[in-house]
Amino acid sequence: MSAVTPGGPHGREFFTTITVAAALHLLDTVRSTQAEAVPLAEALGRTPAMAVRSTAALPGFARSTVDGFAVQAADTYGASEGLPSYLDVVGSVAMGRPAEVSVRPGTAVAVPTGGVLPAGADAVVMVEHTQETMPGAVEVVRPVAPGDGTVRADEDVAAGDEVAPAGRPLRAQDLGMLAAAGVTSVDVHRRPRVGIASTGDEVVPPTTAVLLPGQVRDATASALAGLVLGAGGEPVPLGVVSDDAAALEMVLRDALARCDVVVVSAGSSVGARDETAGVVAKLGEPGIRCHGLALRPGKPTLLADCGGVPVLGLPGNPLSALVVFRLLGVPLVRRAGGTTDSPPEPTVRAILDRQVPSQTGRLDVVQVTVDRRPDGAVAKPLFGASALLSVLTAADGWIAVPEDATGLPAGAAVDVTLYR
Amino acid sequence: MSAVTPGGPHGREFFTTITVAAALHLLDTVRSTQAEAVPLAEALGRTPAMAVRSTAALPGFARSTVDGFAVQAADTYGASEGLPSYLDVVGSVAMGRPAEVSVRPGTAVAVPTGGVLPAGADAVVMVEHTQETMPGAVEVVRPVAPGDGTVRADEDVAAGDEVAPAGRPLRAQDLGMLAAAGVTSVDVHRRPRVGIASTGDEVVPPTTAVLLPGQVRDATASALAGLVLGAGGEPVPLGVVSDDAAALEMVLRDALARCDVVVVSAGSSVGARDETAGVVAKLGEPGIRCHGLALRPGKPTLLADCGGVPVLGLPGNPLSALVVFRLLGVPLVRRAGGTTDSPPEPTVRAILDRQVPSQTGRLDVVQVTVDRRPDGAVAKPLFGASALLSVLTAADGWIAVPEDATGLPAGAAVDVTLYR
Repeated sequence: MSAVTPGGPHGREFFTTITVAAALHLLDTVRSTQAEAVPLAEALGRTPAMAVRSTAALPGFARSTVDGFAVQAADTYGASEGLPSYLDVVGSVAMGRPAEVSVRPGTAVAVPTGGVLPAGADAVVMVEHTQETMPGAVEVVRPVAPGDGTVRADEDVAAGDEVAPAGRPLRAQDLGMLAAAGVTSVDVHRRPRVGIASTGDEVVPPTTAVLLPGQVRDATASALAGLVLGAGGEPVPLGVVSDDAAALEMVLRDALARCDVVVVSAGSSVGARDETAGVVAKLGEPGIRCHGLALRPGKPTLLADCGGVPVLGLPGNPLSALVVFRLLGVPLVRRAGGTTDSPPEPTVRAILDRQVPSQTGRLDVVQVTVDRRPDGAVAKPLFGASALLSVLTAADGWIAVPEDATGLPAGAAVDVTLYR
Repeated sequence: MSAVTPGGPHGREFFTTITVAAALHLLDTVRSTQAEAVPLAEALGRTPAMAVRSTAALPGFARSTVDGFAVQAADTYGASEGLPSYLDVVGSVAMGRPAEVSVRPGTAVAVPTGGVLPAGADAVVMVEHTQETMPGAVEVVRPVAPGDGTVRADEDVAAGDEVAPAGRPLRAQDLGMLAAAGVTSVDVHRRPRVGIASTGDEVVPPTTAVLLPGQVRDATASALAGLVLGAGGEPVPLGVVSDDAAALEMVLRDALARCDVVVVSAGSSVGARDETAGVVAKLGEPGIRCHGLALRPGKPTLLADCGGVPVLGLPGNPLSALVVFRLLGVPLVRRAGGTTDSPPEPTVRAILDRQVPSQTGRLDVVQVTVDRRPDGAVAKPLFGASALLSVLTAADGWIAVPEDATGLPAGAAVDVTLYR
């Protein structure tokens, strides 16, 4: 844990930084939202609050997996094109209906793919391996072993089996499995409500049609809302708050009362940042847990626990704020939403097309474009003023230069995390 | 294009198969939905129908990127700790306000990060490289070049620049950029409506509490709805249709009138599949374009164009249906939704832990779990009856064995597409 040293003389900042990994570790204790029941049709991407189990076996009856004839396998042993087994066809199974006839030695029952395996049968011969040379009889030209062409009544799922784990967002096939098990409502974690406030006397709402000199529209809040949605949260817009400690405190206290996570992008000047930290420090115990990340861009980041609600203070410039939120905010929202097994992020291994300088002791996040060539992907770093949002919109993804590296040489193999 | 040969003698199927690549090529002509305006807060993942351009330059004014002093760079040339440049501080810039004072030779103006660069200044010296030894003056101890510590008025975006391209779903940072440009409503393609019908006399709705022998709940429709949502579409549930040609035709004709894409998971028996094909063939010109894919699982797949609405007929068993839908249906829905630049899928390179047999001339999709070990990821194929949904829910992803391979040896490096 870092000791927090507020702004030093002349507005310069002297605070101890911690690593991104250490900051992530601080999220381990974040509490997750309560459960709520949602219909299956609304459950995609939602996180089950407890494991879901099937009350019954699936498919629930022994079933044919081919179109063919249910038989006793022993009746087919040694069968060949030259010396087929002759069996009496004593009936057929209709799709979706019980089998009304059973299989005895020397007999067969016609059965469609997915049909009930009749009593007495232990295998199904594919129709392709039979010949119907005369009515009421079938020639089997290839032997089957017991179990061939069938699934057991509990082969997909046994009664009591887990059909969806707690903590992992539901994927399309999980919805299918729940439907198969007759689960039409799932207990999932409520989407965490994530309050998003922006500060800065220069920041005005995106709806501002004409800017006065010195003003910029709030880009960060809209982008953060998108990241919150992508992480399974519900964005709660708190608007733009002027650089006024009392106004900010009122907005944040209100947010703490109705949100599960609060994010505030601090004004970009040192004074505005100090003010934000001062306000956050008053909002509840234990208070500020980290002030300053060993990260570029993103050093002036603040992480606090205000009476059990995590508060994340982001740098004022949009690119830095979004870099920090992807690294810390997305895991925070997922954790608050009960997700312990996050969906995989798309990545690609690429060759760096030029050198990337860095300092040891700090994680560097570098935006890149990815050029897919026949002989492999090439990552091209997008340098430029870190305040520029256009760098992020031009990027296909980002790479991290780890704390222990002094940079990466041209030609290095890197893992690019791709935006989607 | 494949010639379609209906079911041959004895219910056996003889149809010409085409490759998955050829089937994807058939989707090239799918028409995309019209544009609709949506508010920025609802635009995540939506696909712009036309490129969005900024009417004005961003940030719109020359801006400081550091806390410091706006100067004329020439005044700092040669400055050092031992021999600083002395400048008169003639004023300061307030955040979000125009600069009310200009910089002349020998003077400096205090400016915060993000503040307006005053007239006359061409650089900003970081406060860390200055000393304020007496009121009204500042010592600069390090030289700056013109442009240092600043961004130009059009450095992020020039007036008329594209801020979001057509055809690529909007990412979080795109929302930020649109907000910065004052774009609060975006013209995006309407979500394509995707009708989802299930056939099969054995199939009953997921809400069926107690199954009769031979019945199974409809797993496919719920899973397909999830995949449709993930591909940016709007699922339109059409329910379970019994294996009756007239009933199926009525449901599909109604769906064609109100959907942009229609998907029908055919009954799993050969008879039910033939019936579905027969109905689809009657629904409109040019009709069935492909009947049979060189794919395992997923051979009995049907692709039709019924009066301009694509119809996808899927195999009856849920796993096969979902494999086909990921390969063909997801691109189809994206294309119908105007997406030409699809979000990247997560993948991981892994070593196959055992041999995977395959036949040449057919694409094999194999479900795998992925074991992440210190020395790399290991992919473990999940074999088992293809009818089992539990194989899909246990899988972390899938690998494709290409048409020209006769299988993959143990130890082969494979690219696993990961489920999310």
